[in-house]
Amino acid sequence: MSYKIIFERLAQYDIGYFVYIGGNDSMDTTNKLSEYAAAHGIDVRIMGAPKTIDNDLHGMDHSPGFASAARYIATTFAEIWCDASVYDFPTVTIVETMGRHVGWLCAASAVARRMGDAPHLIYLPEIPFEDAKFLEDVKEQMKKHTAVVIAISEGIQRPDGSYVCEDASNIKVDAFGHKHMGGACKVLENIISNHIDCKIRSIELSLLQRCAAHLASPIDLSESKALGAMALSRALEGGSGEVSVLNRISSTPYRVEYSTVPATTIANLEKTVPREWINERGNFVTEELVQYMLPLIGGTFGSDLSGGYPRHFSF
Amino acid sequence: MSYKIIFERLAQYDIGYFVYIGGNDSMDTTNKLSEYAAAHGIDVRIMGAPKTIDNDLHGMDHSPGFASAARYIATTFAEIWCDASVYDFPTVTIVETMGRHVGWLCAASAVARRMGDAPHLIYLPEIPFEDAKFLEDVKEQMKKHTAVVIAISEGIQRPDGSYVCEDASNIKVDAFGHKHMGGACKVLENIISNHIDCKIRSIELSLLQRCAAHLASPIDLSESKALGAMALSRALEGGSGEVSVLNRISSTPYRVEYSTVPATTIANLEKTVPREWINERGNFVTEELVQYMLPLIGGTFGSDLSGGYPRHFSF
Repeated sequence: MSYKIIFERLAQYDIGYFVYIGGNDSMDTTNKLSEYAAAHGIDVRIMGAPKTIDNDLHGMDHSPGFASAARYIATTFAEIWCDASVYDFPTVTIVETMGRHVGWLCAASAVARRMGDAPHLIYLPEIPFEDAKFLEDVKEQMKKHTAVVIAISEGIQRPDGSYVCEDASNIKVDAFGHKHMGGACKVLENIISNHIDCKIRSIELSLLQRCAAHLASPIDLSESKALGAMALSRALEGGSGEVSVLNRISSTPYRVEYSTVPATTIANLEKTVPREWINERGNFVTEELVQYMLPLIGGTFGSDLSGGYPRHFSF
Repeated sequence: MSYKIIFERLAQYDIGYFVYIGGNDSMDTTNKLSEYAAAHGIDVRIMGAPKTIDNDLHGMDHSPGFASAARYIATTFAEIWCDASVYDFPTVTIVETMGRHVGWLCAASAVARRMGDAPHLIYLPEIPFEDAKFLEDVKEQMKKHTAVVIAISEGIQRPDGSYVCEDASNIKVDAFGHKHMGGACKVLENIISNHIDCKIRSIELSLLQRCAAHLASPIDLSESKALGAMALSRALEGGSGEVSVLNRISSTPYRVEYSTVPATTIANLEKTVPREWINERGNFVTEELVQYMLPLIGGTFGSDLSGGYPRHFSF
């Protein structure tokens, strides 16, 4: 749809304020629509409100949606560990999260270590993936644990930049030109089964990690509302081409403040997991990263979920 | 391990009562151990307590574990529907549940229709699966819905008795000689993509459906405890070779009564979904089946889960 038609429609319905909710692609659109309106003397305020489970937006502590998906992922890894750890023979369970270029979602699995003993290994797109090193890591963990649980991001790449999942399947491309991924876990399953004798299972969290509303983080819900309200109130004040953001003032107690920044500072940029929040070998994340995530997924949710995640007993 | 060694170990630790928790294989073991003890004059009481998410045990209204897995499946289908229904182009989402020979878990997806508009089609192992009929069903649903959501059981079989998932992969066999399944959804994805132009996604619920303790049904939890207690108290009264069971006295209000039955009446038998609880065409389940399931997954779980499952709003 051309910009002309968009603004004709807005005029037709007498719409003067437009808040576009989305990720870095959408913030690019926010910027372009705002520039178009300014260049053509159209009095419509275009604001952006951030939203992406990927947590890859610059200019803010974290993006709405991420905390809920992170909570789902942490909860699910803890439950998978409970399931995997009942067997007395060696097993490897590979769990694939979303994340084409950034590993935030996959890194959230580390929070499950608060509830159990897994995951044991975490592979993010930020670190080149090497088969030989991976096999060494798995063998090392199998010496220590009967049930090894591995978290991988769909977007893990080999040192030459090719996606690991490209081994598995033809990759489709979506409307933004992004590759539709998935299946990296099957590739790793094959790598292991060719070299190690054990039961292997791979699980793609697929859509479930982004639609599991029953585990939505209460903090995420309230921050999302506040960011939408901030975008709208700035538009009413005359702002345009900006995006509402939140920044963390304090972790204990958890406090954030809201403001807006130009959409150009966010559009098309990707915030990766900092190298210093990944361990030296590139197969796990640091305690700093877990401390960053803990306040986001917290908050009680029913009496059985104290601390924001289910408590499991262990013998 | 031979029976002799098992009873030597029990004697070594002065164990006189043994409750074996499991499904129809385990109930067979319960029976065999009890017979062995009787035949050899060993004074150890062997009881069975039922537990399987498959809900395939005879002699009881439902089996512990099923209600929680059913709740997870119903909740997840409702959430997948929310996710799928935001797109304005045709999509088909195929979601695969566990269930080698019986379709109870897959049928639980029908409860999601209380929360949204999906699933639209349900395929159980009880009904032979025919590609041509399946394609007709999908095309028919695509006329009515932009986003079509399909529930399938991992164990759906072609009219000749071969598993649909056998098209996809080599199948491994577990300790009980059961085939390790999964992948039927990928086969159906291929069938559709060869004939219909639309975006298709397939999701395996995999382990998640059996380990999602955060969505455990409160009724399931209390019934499981009661069945374990019943098995133990019968053992203390001198019972052996029996299994604790529960039967439904009333649905409104929901009430069950507990008793025990000989393990031989349960061992190695499978309770399938009755033909009259599946629609004539074999692509959905009846309201009677939903009414059977509703009390099992109910009960509040946190303030946001009134009625036992998350409420979603729709426009």
